[in-house]
Amino acid sequence: MQIESIGIIGTGVIGSSWAAFYASKGFRVKMWDVDATVGQNGQQQAVDTIKLLQTQGMLSGDTVQESISRIKVAGALEQAVENVQLVQESVAENYEIKQQVFKALDAHTDPAAILASSSSGLLMTPIQQVTNHPGRCLIAHPFNPPHLIPLVELVPGDETDEQAISKMKIFYEGLGKVPVVLKKAVPGHLANRLAMALWREAVDLVANGIASVEDVDKAVSAGPGLRWAVMGPHMIYHLGGGPGGMDHFIDHFAPAVKVWWESLASWTSLPPEAKNLLVGGLKEEMGERTMADMNRMRDEKLVKMLKILFED
Amino acid sequence: MQIESIGIIGTGVIGSSWAAFYASKGFRVKMWDVDATVGQNGQQQAVDTIKLLQTQGMLSGDTVQESISRIKVAGALEQAVENVQLVQESVAENYEIKQQVFKALDAHTDPAAILASSSSGLLMTPIQQVTNHPGRCLIAHPFNPPHLIPLVELVPGDETDEQAISKMKIFYEGLGKVPVVLKKAVPGHLANRLAMALWREAVDLVANGIASVEDVDKAVSAGPGLRWAVMGPHMIYHLGGGPGGMDHFIDHFAPAVKVWWESLASWTSLPPEAKNLLVGGLKEEMGERTMADMNRMRDEKLVKMLKILFED
Repeated sequence: MQIESIGIIGTGVIGSSWAAFYASKGFRVKMWDVDATVGQNGQQQAVDTIKLLQTQGMLSGDTVQESISRIKVAGALEQAVENVQLVQESVAENYEIKQQVFKALDAHTDPAAILASSSSGLLMTPIQQVTNHPGRCLIAHPFNPPHLIPLVELVPGDETDEQAISKMKIFYEGLGKVPVVLKKAVPGHLANRLAMALWREAVDLVANGIASVEDVDKAVSAGPGLRWAVMGPHMIYHLGGGPGGMDHFIDHFAPAVKVWWESLASWTSLPPEAKNLLVGGLKEEMGERTMADMNRMRDEKLVKMLKILFED
Repeated sequence: MQIESIGIIGTGVIGSSWAAFYASKGFRVKMWDVDATVGQNGQQQAVDTIKLLQTQGMLSGDTVQESISRIKVAGALEQAVENVQLVQESVAENYEIKQQVFKALDAHTDPAAILASSSSGLLMTPIQQVTNHPGRCLIAHPFNPPHLIPLVELVPGDETDEQAISKMKIFYEGLGKVPVVLKKAVPGHLANRLAMALWREAVDLVANGIASVEDVDKAVSAGPGLRWAVMGPHMIYHLGGGPGGMDHFIDHFAPAVKVWWESLASWTSLPPEAKNLLVGGLKEEMGERTMADMNRMRDEKLVKMLKILFED
């Protein structure tokens, strides 16, 4: 069943970004939120995002008006998912709420439609259990904002059909996304786990008075962050090993690396003093710049980088 | 004392890249290596790098020939550091060797010259102890390759003058680098600690069969890596907190993040099965591409990104 119409359930930051993305790629999109005001705001947000995509030269072969015209707001969940081949659920991160939504989705969709949850932390197994067709339920977690960042993490629950995962992998690839597949579910999927391993150390370096918030941020963005935008950590070290690759890298650097690992932060709750240090340090790092300045700078640079990295 | 001439001691990968960088910025450079063949190769490597910088449009206001003509190979350490105002030491990562070199540098340089070590892991305190003028000795660790990546980590030893650190901070900033200052020395400085915290989790995800090497790499490069090239992790989460910033981010996400931290890898020695899994997975990720292909791709994309990120 080819995907042509998509239901977006939950129209906050993530849902509205998905709506803009799908509409800009030619899909008919029906949005619904349990809170009608959020639904209206979500549509407006999606429209604004489509206009932004055009400004940034990321809307191709189509007019803004055509993209916008594909987005509808539904009056009820049933209407939003009627005759759709994919539902992208982006409601609150809460098992009870997601279970309620998936039960309704299961009842009101064609059983062949895929039900994908944008959840960044919850597991699919307890959610799909409330449905009669659990095989088509999976996690498809985007990295914020979904209309720009290519990563989509596909995570099965215990009852998810392999076919549903492979179908969605092909679907996202076709849209220029970079889907990755988890063989088993773990808290935080891949990207947030990796990011939180790094951030723990970043917090620790500030909390221990080793460097300022700004210098820790620079140590990432002017150093390893540059390389990580081009290729992942395994490949970086494979090349770092020279002709011998990862094999040589491990043999050669293992003793030094062991010393570093032994001294890395391993706490699992944020140290109490960290919050004030971070908030104060960020104020310094911001200087005269506003949040809006920083957000605009980030997105402008991201768009330029995406063109370099993904359009060659 | 303004820096005009620079002595490069140790002319392997790092030393020769420094030589190319400094020569391209208008400094007279004298290179020396304990192994004369490495010295000659280092010069050739520096020349090739300068030609590459021109090809990449990163050599401005000067000709390749002028840059190359500033590089000399010295016959002895004494000659390489005679009348220089900065020594960039890049010899093997070994305390005994570095101490021997710093003793000789201290004896043969103007006492006002700065002695900077490129060491990625050793501390300055035991090295500077062998000198008569320890105040001007510090770590200035570049991120590989120094001719491209902006980050330079400045780390004092116990006897380093604050003035030496602030002088080098201003010096590197003037050359378009991004220096960061560690208030205290820690193993791996900032960037390698942060990178190794992330890599431990990246290895663990493969070792536990959660995802393939390639998918873990994609989860970084198509997701958080993109944002980290633009700004560091603290600022990312500050913006992620919305108008409430880091304060709100911590309050709102603390419970979820705690669960992730509790389940992250905490081993300090590479699991024995990891090496084969990584080597095998990288072979798959490489596919038909050679190491040379990957290196070229990385550097071409890096150069384009540097122009976007640092030349605005």
